[in-house]
Amino acid sequence: METRECIKTRRSIRRFTDEPVSDDLLYEVLEAVRWAPSWANTQCWEIIVVKDSSTKDKIASILSPNNPAAKGVKEAPVVLIVCGRTGLAGFKDGVAKTDKGDWYMFDVGIACQNLCLAAHDLGLGTVHVGSLDHKALDELLGLPEDVKSVEVIPLGYPAKEGKAPPRKAIEDFVYFEKYGNKIKA
Amino acid sequence: METRECIKTRRSIRRFTDEPVSDDLLYEVLEAVRWAPSWANTQCWEIIVVKDSSTKDKIASILSPNNPAAKGVKEAPVVLIVCGRTGLAGFKDGVAKTDKGDWYMFDVGIACQNLCLAAHDLGLGTVHVGSLDHKALDELLGLPEDVKSVEVIPLGYPAKEGKAPPRKAIEDFVYFEKYGNKIKA
Repeated sequence: METRECIKTRRSIRRFTDEPVSDDLLYEVLEAVRWAPSWANTQCWEIIVVKDSSTKDKIASILSPNNPAAKGVKEAPVVLIVCGRTGLAGFKDGVAKTDKGDWYMFDVGIACQNLCLAAHDLGLGTVHVGSLDHKALDELLGLPEDVKSVEVIPLGYPAKEGKAPPRKAIEDFVYFEKYGNKIKA
Repeated sequence: METRECIKTRRSIRRFTDEPVSDDLLYEVLEAVRWAPSWANTQCWEIIVVKDSSTKDKIASILSPNNPAAKGVKEAPVVLIVCGRTGLAGFKDGVAKTDKGDWYMFDVGIACQNLCLAAHDLGLGTVHVGSLDHKALDELLGLPEDVKSVEVIPLGYPAKEGKAPPRKAIEDFVYFEKYGNKIKA
């Protein structure tokens, strides 16, 4: 699929069929993460691939109550947990380079978007699920102290079309030369 | 360009020709940001479009010393500063939903990747520039207290091919069922 079409037609998919995702497709999706850009090429992302039903059920129970993605996490053939190794992005020789501290959330965001776009390109659905108890998830997955879960992404064939929530117009978030200036320079 | 090809062939571009970027192409790039997914559809991104030479020079001087992107920021026909409005992503009714606090870095990361992929799709080059004095940049752009600059993205026609820094193999960042387990379940 053409890139800008893929960007515009990707939807959050929260219900999946029971059709399995082949390893070939799974690796195509993971390959897209490999090519994400990152702070000084530190590539801080780590991904756990979960297919075990009881682990998926446990993950679903760790999501924030009434999270609309819980059913999708249980029924998707593959659930990806995207994590970030801390202390890499945003640092040089162990010292933070900016007042924002660790940039792992930013670099993992980039990686997750590559993942979701590649999945959509392959006919697979995903949704970003970040509202959950991260401490419980880190423990469930056996993450070491310096690796933190960021989000859960169920991956599978869509059982239901996703809807596009309304977007701001470009004019609502773009300014020219200085903040607040809506007139083109 | 096909999506996965676009993801794999996007490079960090740090030198640009003096060919201007048409408003049509600029709006295509901004349109890709519009379609980024975000926490509860909060769309926290804000973008300043800079074309003024003296502002570009000031931005270049705000980058971390010896930042290899400084020349590119001065010479690119357009410089985009991608910011995040705080207090939206990661929150519900003003209360943080996770122990990670504000998710604006994550959502802005997603938006920036849409931006860079759409640019590459259109034959334009970009580079993510995050190592800089954000406080000075916020002041230069006149950002309100609750909007924070995240990164600077020069946008233009590449003057020089970008090189792909080496990437980890999939096996180096992917685990199965539990952290550390490299054997497929």
